[in-house]
Amino acid sequence: MPAYSHLLLAVDFSPNTGHIIDRGVELATAFGARISLVHVVEFAQVDLSNELVMPQELELDKELLNLAENRLRELAQKHGVEQHPRHVRQGSTKREIFNLAAEQGADLIVLGSHGRSGIQLLLGSTANAVLHGSPCDVLAVRVQN
Amino acid sequence: MPAYSHLLLAVDFSPNTGHIIDRGVELATAFGARISLVHVVEFAQVDLSNELVMPQELELDKELLNLAENRLRELAQKHGVEQHPRHVRQGSTKREIFNLAAEQGADLIVLGSHGRSGIQLLLGSTANAVLHGSPCDVLAVRVQN
Repeated sequence: MPAYSHLLLAVDFSPNTGHIIDRGVELATAFGARISLVHVVEFAQVDLSNELVMPQELELDKELLNLAENRLRELAQKHGVEQHPRHVRQGSTKREIFNLAAEQGADLIVLGSHGRSGIQLLLGSTANAVLHGSPCDVLAVRVQN
Repeated sequence: MPAYSHLLLAVDFSPNTGHIIDRGVELATAFGARISLVHVVEFAQVDLSNELVMPQELELDKELLNLAENRLRELAQKHGVEQHPRHVRQGSTKREIFNLAAEQGADLIVLGSHGRSGIQLLLGSTANAVLHGSPCDVLAVRVQN
């Protein structure tokens, strides 16, 4: 029985994210597994402001989501995985990746050892929170800073 | 080309460590990869005392190392991996696992998502130190607390 059947590749748009996709494809081939891609956009207003959400900020979020969808499609095409499902989510990176993995029945999350969507973002601030809440195994692919 | 050729399984003696070995064996089979096992004993005097090392403490360390070697052999036998190389190291868990992976040319470290030898121990105390120094990819196998 293969160890994993559905790999969820968590990508940002850092220079090394292509290596994570390529590694995910290698693993999926070895296991005969499915692949899905996810990119999480943190809300603009979370990053930029603690104030009430203004309509123009909601517009900005929509634009960021559209931009992310376009970039994810281009990245998928570049790495030959455009036929696989892609998900762009907004919110907390950790929560969205874990939730999506559970919803989609992914059994391995593949991400970078550094970077905006790297394993660091799946870790809590306390020792007990480390990878707490992950519905499945997590592979940290080594990437340079 | 298989993604990984040499898996280093980092085990402690928690109730779930057998699951990590079993998962490592599944993966090694899928990749046609080699397996090594490592257990790290942190020095007794580091845990128990900040004072100068006394001869009786060195004796205690030796006893702990012998105990660990015996337990690791029994664990390997129980999970059918007694033919694979086993390493018992003493010192910092993170440093010893990373050093051994580099020395042995391992290209995937497999460990638990919790526990004394879990991924938590490979993480530094600062964000930038996350998995810093790992010579290869790291798989965190989901285990219950």
